[in-house]
Amino acid sequence: MKTLLVIGIGAGNPDYITMQAVKALNRADVFFLMDKGQSKDKLIDLRREICERYITDHDYRFVEAHSPERERGDVDYKASVDDLNLAKQHTFERLINEEMSDGQCGGFLVWGDPALYDSTVRILQAILVSGRCEFEFEVIPGITSVQALAAQHKVPLNRIGRSIEITTGRRLAAGQVSDADSLVVMLDAEDSYHHVADQETEIYWGAYLGTPDEILISGKLKDVADEIERVRKAARLANGWIMDTYLLRKP
Amino acid sequence: MKTLLVIGIGAGNPDYITMQAVKALNRADVFFLMDKGQSKDKLIDLRREICERYITDHDYRFVEAHSPERERGDVDYKASVDDLNLAKQHTFERLINEEMSDGQCGGFLVWGDPALYDSTVRILQAILVSGRCEFEFEVIPGITSVQALAAQHKVPLNRIGRSIEITTGRRLAAGQVSDADSLVVMLDAEDSYHHVADQETEIYWGAYLGTPDEILISGKLKDVADEIERVRKAARLANGWIMDTYLLRKP
Ligand SMILES: C[S@@+](CC[C@H](N)C(=O)[O-])C[C@H]1O[C@@H](n2cnc3c(N)ncnc32)[C@H](O)[C@@H]1O
Ligand SMILES: C[S@@+](CC[C@H](N)C(=O)[O-])C[C@H]1O[C@@H](n2cnc3c(N)ncnc32)[C@H](O)[C@@H]1O
Repeated sequence: MKTLLVIGIGAGNPDYITMQAVKALNRADVFFLMDKGQSKDKLIDLRREICERYITDHDYRFVEAHSPERERGDVDYKASVDDLNLAKQHTFERLINEEMSDGQCGGFLVWGDPALYDSTVRILQAILVSGRCEFEFEVIPGITSVQALAAQHKVPLNRIGRSIEITTGRRLAAGQVSDADSLVVMLDAEDSYHHVADQETEIYWGAYLGTPDEILISGKLKDVADEIERVRKAARLANGWIMDTYLLRKP
Repeated sequence: MKTLLVIGIGAGNPDYITMQAVKALNRADVFFLMDKGQSKDKLIDLRREICERYITDHDYRFVEAHSPERERGDVDYKASVDDLNLAKQHTFERLINEEMSDGQCGGFLVWGDPALYDSTVRILQAILVSGRCEFEFEVIPGITSVQALAAQHKVPLNRIGRSIEITTGRRLAAGQVSDADSLVVMLDAEDSYHHVADQETEIYWGAYLGTPDEILISGKLKDVADEIERVRKAARLANGWIMDTYLLRKP
């Protein structure tokens, strides 16, 4: 049997790694690096750095795989993600079949937590269901960008006894959010906080959380929305890419 | 200046602790233990165990504080929580004033992540706002029970591109939830999953997650709701207390 470990490495600070993740790192014979896009180099470097720092006394190797990218632009979002996931399944199957021998252990180093807006677990479950490939797998949680955001701003995610909604910039812009008084927005490529009507809403915004480039801005939307847009644009230009997340709290 | 560290220790498995938390543990001169209720002894033991395991070469002490309990029964929920928080503020102020000298560092070991249904951060912010007491504080995120749940069931929390709502059993029972297709329920004392109308909904239920007593049950509500109720009741009876969380996924 082959074993796959889906290891959450935390979303930014290398110290977000858990003891459980360190133990898992030390079990893997091979790590699959799947990043894509402009943030690729930086994120792959961080994974290598984490392995170097925490893997004590065994040999391991990295296999970089071309991670298919989602079709952008004027396509059906759900369908393009489905296509992407099929392509990723085939990539994963190839890695498992060709890069691991029986009894070996392979690791996926997932940014943040594997359960939050990440497709690794879904892809592995789909491969198992298809029966095309056999393996066992384990999931190791990691600190998400949502938790990094709350910790760095020193705020709770929820109001007392109330709900939290975690959603995407796309859904916020399309008005597809509930009236939860705490809304966390991820995957926002387009400053969707400008779509929030109530300008008294508090925003806690964070970019490159947990990294040396971290930026934090908070305040009422009417006071800081334009500043966030400006800072965000400049940072994206300077770094070539940006990762940002925010919490919106109703007044 | 005094420094307080609000340290998330993860929700169950001692290996959920992060490197950042280990470093924070090693900075504290005194730890404040605030647990209450029936789970108290077990949870305080786990905190002591974590300190013993990870604090390498400095002296530290524990101060157990009586943590006021919320009035139960037929009272206004919000008001009783507010009263409780005021009482907690006074307890915290006393600890900071009487148990720490200038330049010292105090630690609160928070179950899971301090940002999720925990009052420590809110209480410290309120004390700072009141001006009654001066200190700096830092927040260290920890693995939540929600992440432990998803990892142990090996499921993503969200559907592709969709929202997640995290809420309480009380709100689910009262129908105060959105139509998010992924709903995580915490703090449920009353089997509120029985209030979900669509019996095709999948439930991923977990109790004592990450601990040796962990129990996992999943399936469609129509198939497993009664089993969960039975198992939950028996486990609570056997242990004297229960912590459980679940993810509801619409069909
Ligand atoms: C594909 S999702 C992956 C989320 C990840 N699994 C997690 O647990 O945080 C990527 C999104 O996470 C958020 N994100 C990840 N890392 C971040 C960081 N260090 N700072 C700010 N946002 C971050 C951004 O919203 C980004 O668009
Ligand atoms: C007051 S909240 C604290 C949550 C915590 N801060 C966290 O990050 O998970 C307590 C609730 O968390 C959930 N919980 C905490 N630890 C758990 C565990 N090990 N297994 C299952 N549920 C747990 C239960 O729903 C419980 O009612």
